[in-house]
Amino acid sequence: MNFKETLGVKTKRAEQILMAYLPEERGFQKTVLEAMNYSVMAGGKRLRPVLMEESFLLFGGEGKRIEPFMAALEMIHNYSLVHDDLPAMDNDEYRRGCKTTWKVYGDGMAILAGDGLLNLAYETAALSFDLARNGEELRQIAAAIQILGRKAGIYGMIGGQTADIEAETGAEVTEEQLLFIHENKTAALIQAAMMIGAVLAGAHKGEVELMEKAAYNIGIAFQIQDDILDVTSTEEVLGKPIGSDEKNNKLTYVSLHGLEKAGKEVERLSQEALSILRSFERKNEFLEELVISLITRDK
Amino acid sequence: MNFKETLGVKTKRAEQILMAYLPEERGFQKTVLEAMNYSVMAGGKRLRPVLMEESFLLFGGEGKRIEPFMAALEMIHNYSLVHDDLPAMDNDEYRRGCKTTWKVYGDGMAILAGDGLLNLAYETAALSFDLARNGEELRQIAAAIQILGRKAGIYGMIGGQTADIEAETGAEVTEEQLLFIHENKTAALIQAAMMIGAVLAGAHKGEVELMEKAAYNIGIAFQIQDDILDVTSTEEVLGKPIGSDEKNNKLTYVSLHGLEKAGKEVERLSQEALSILRSFERKNEFLEELVISLITRDK
Repeated sequence: MNFKETLGVKTKRAEQILMAYLPEERGFQKTVLEAMNYSVMAGGKRLRPVLMEESFLLFGGEGKRIEPFMAALEMIHNYSLVHDDLPAMDNDEYRRGCKTTWKVYGDGMAILAGDGLLNLAYETAALSFDLARNGEELRQIAAAIQILGRKAGIYGMIGGQTADIEAETGAEVTEEQLLFIHENKTAALIQAAMMIGAVLAGAHKGEVELMEKAAYNIGIAFQIQDDILDVTSTEEVLGKPIGSDEKNNKLTYVSLHGLEKAGKEVERLSQEALSILRSFERKNEFLEELVISLITRDK
Repeated sequence: MNFKETLGVKTKRAEQILMAYLPEERGFQKTVLEAMNYSVMAGGKRLRPVLMEESFLLFGGEGKRIEPFMAALEMIHNYSLVHDDLPAMDNDEYRRGCKTTWKVYGDGMAILAGDGLLNLAYETAALSFDLARNGEELRQIAAAIQILGRKAGIYGMIGGQTADIEAETGAEVTEEQLLFIHENKTAALIQAAMMIGAVLAGAHKGEVELMEKAAYNIGIAFQIQDDILDVTSTEEVLGKPIGSDEKNNKLTYVSLHGLEKAGKEVERLSQEALSILRSFERKNEFLEELVISLITRDK
């Protein structure tokens, strides 16, 4: 199989794991369950769970205790989209070509569906304890839940979202603020993915810190590439309107430093990430290819 | 000290523990941190953390690993109020005499503040792992996180909230549906409090199940008492408008069965809860008094 085919298989596997932890749509609370499943199953690259499992494999991880965390992280990613799309936030009516959750189920139910997904994420992650075979694995799962909490929270993704909203409404945005937003809104969940994969496989503290650094680079490079594509791509290739950053007067790495420097920064960040991934005793070529594909992507 | 004075001391203690886990208001995400602290510190009886600690003491619990869970449960209770008050949900402008979070910080920031509190709850609970002194305590904390997740989620509080919203907008509400709402919206977090207290103190499975049953009774009795006071109290004593259930055409235990039967049901439920609490080897007289005070309260 070539890279694309392998990615297809792994994405499908991540999706099946996710589906296994989604609720059955019945009971007096049926509507919220439908809204949760609707928003999670409306598509997506399943990038975070795939990155998590590949990081787990990079450190020789075995067994099923990674699976609840793969589902949990994707639930957290999706709840953040459901709440982001709300009229009180970004007011988006479509995502990935489908109506957003609030457009289908109403604002109130979309708020509850997001809450439901966030809570279910921790409920699901905590199921991993039942799969622990010894005290050591119990400790790893405890550490993984701590990482998930920190990276998804006010010192991670929620912190980034807040700063992003403030940047849209407030005064001039500084470069420091822009980096804070990218680091927390985009990179934090990628860090959670790669750190949790490593921790659950038994990686040492220093190795987990290196994965945090690599994931930071990947997250920031991913974001800058997004900003580059908004300038250089076509609507046909990208599948969404281009030039929206300039139109919205949005500060991006590209608007600050120009296309050439932005391209070089993506190159620098990704090379650093790759050299970290290649520095470990075991190798995971698929993970390396995945990182390259994220950063050289044209959509 | 009499009961009221002791309750005051214990409530204050719960509040101080809670405050120790709340974020400092600084950084680019400062606004969401302010909104979170605002909503948590706007008052409240701190009933759930007090019930949790007393249940912990009932089973001879010692040490500080209960504290992160006391804070976590109160955060979950408060996030649910922040989201409940939103214009897209109950559209309430005041709570406990203060402006609601969305009235002060706007809808978007209130959604993020609720998300921030929910996530911080799990982040905080997971800090308890750092206080575990052995594998046994590690296992107890893992079980406590599982209970928290289940009782706060779609098969607990969020499930109850969903059914409650549906009952307001939908067709006729059945008695079965009403009980589901009370069980999940009101009783579930009280169950979490008492079960987690027991689990962390090393109570056995059968004992934890009895605590779940006692907490169910307390939660339902608490709710029926609420409905009784809405009919029998005065606005002066209650501190909020009375007769609102009838005005809103809301189905309650009282509207279904009348005041007399409702009063008897509160009596029956609370006696059953008390006899469970008295059946354990150790006793906690303060906890018993607290249960009685909740059910015989006039506001």
